[in-house]
Amino acid sequence: MTSEEFMANTRIVLVETSHPGNIGATARAMKCMGLKQLYLVKPPSGFPGADVTARAAGADDILAGAVVCDSLAEAVQDCVLVAGTTARDRSIPWPVLDPRQCAQRALADIEHGPVAILFGRERSGLKNEEIDRCHCVVHIPTNPSFSSLNIAAAVQIMAYELFMAASRQVAPVTADPAAPRIPLATAAELEQLYDHLERCMTRVGFFDPDKPRRLQRRLRRLFNRAQLDQNELNILRGFLAAIDDHTEAGSG
Amino acid sequence: MTSEEFMANTRIVLVETSHPGNIGATARAMKCMGLKQLYLVKPPSGFPGADVTARAAGADDILAGAVVCDSLAEAVQDCVLVAGTTARDRSIPWPVLDPRQCAQRALADIEHGPVAILFGRERSGLKNEEIDRCHCVVHIPTNPSFSSLNIAAAVQIMAYELFMAASRQVAPVTADPAAPRIPLATAAELEQLYDHLERCMTRVGFFDPDKPRRLQRRLRRLFNRAQLDQNELNILRGFLAAIDDHTEAGSG
Repeated sequence: MTSEEFMANTRIVLVETSHPGNIGATARAMKCMGLKQLYLVKPPSGFPGADVTARAAGADDILAGAVVCDSLAEAVQDCVLVAGTTARDRSIPWPVLDPRQCAQRALADIEHGPVAILFGRERSGLKNEEIDRCHCVVHIPTNPSFSSLNIAAAVQIMAYELFMAASRQVAPVTADPAAPRIPLATAAELEQLYDHLERCMTRVGFFDPDKPRRLQRRLRRLFNRAQLDQNELNILRGFLAAIDDHTEAGSG
Repeated sequence: MTSEEFMANTRIVLVETSHPGNIGATARAMKCMGLKQLYLVKPPSGFPGADVTARAAGADDILAGAVVCDSLAEAVQDCVLVAGTTARDRSIPWPVLDPRQCAQRALADIEHGPVAILFGRERSGLKNEEIDRCHCVVHIPTNPSFSSLNIAAAVQIMAYELFMAASRQVAPVTADPAAPRIPLATAAELEQLYDHLERCMTRVGFFDPDKPRRLQRRLRRLFNRAQLDQNELNILRGFLAAIDDHTEAGSG
């Protein structure tokens, strides 16, 4: 399964959301991460409506495809993994995952069938009998003294973790792949730079070759750490050459 | 440093946000994850206001403590790590991290001083000259065909990753723990270095201030990437001062 298919087959289920705007913001959060399936259990009377569309900010296809259900059972009946998000501690212990662990679990289970992640009411979350339908509980860690996460924000975090899990199957993002690739400086070129730097520093009286070489070592460490490319090397060499030209007359 | 202190010392900077509601939603997203410092560069006329307060949903202390700045420079001057979030590909390569990598970096650097994470304008993001002030760019991975992440949603993802990193507190191995810890250069000190470098390059005829600023941008990228410490900064400033002294007679 490709990462696109994983995202397309992972379902977000909103249970009795009160504010239509939150449904729109959820659609936007989903679409940004490539999620497509939105299920709404007993949505408010404002759905569909202007508030929903405004907050969706262009994720209209998610709203148009949203499946309205009369019960949670209907929304999750074909799912092989049902995960319920919760902000509260539950008196009955349930396997609790964080969003990252839940995304890994979803990635593992999706081969077997659809995966659903549930988000409860704005004020009261999911009821115990709804949690009873879940294979696991997802707890999004928050500040214990202020855990009032907006529902679309909770969906955003979960969608982001699903997207991260899906894309890590391939390769982690470490550099802008669209950026032009400039060859890196070679070790020999770096040695030439360090020699030039030392000559130039000596010329302007900043470096005394008879003193310990701590200064040179610090500069090596700095430029090695930066891992210079050819352009940067040329700029530095050009600057040093300009200093040479400019100080030649003065220093005789 | 405790995880609470880490979160309390990590700064969210909103640059020229247009919609007051987004500032409120950002405050809420921050508070849920224990972030406290909100800096606003040129906020809209609707701040403070009813829209802001409504969307903050109780995160009033974050809003009350928000620092309003006239410029980005003012907002980040004491920071040792400045990370700019971006949705776009940039033509000049900059080190690009994902939010998770950025959180690890922030956790490593916070011992040296405040860390700032920048969020640009709703429509156009951060300008190139604002990216020039960043040590790294944070790219939040999104659906390539719909990357319209709400600004508060972007803050929510970043705040969540910071909170996850803080609570895992597994210190990343980035340097020899036995090595002496030298404080990092602040953003204001780096600006002074870049000014000095430009004056010095102009003096020796290597840089023409009337030409496009591509050269300056490349040098900023190099030294920002290397994340200079105070010793290295002093060496570079000392070298530039020696060039100044040496060329004064020659060029005067």
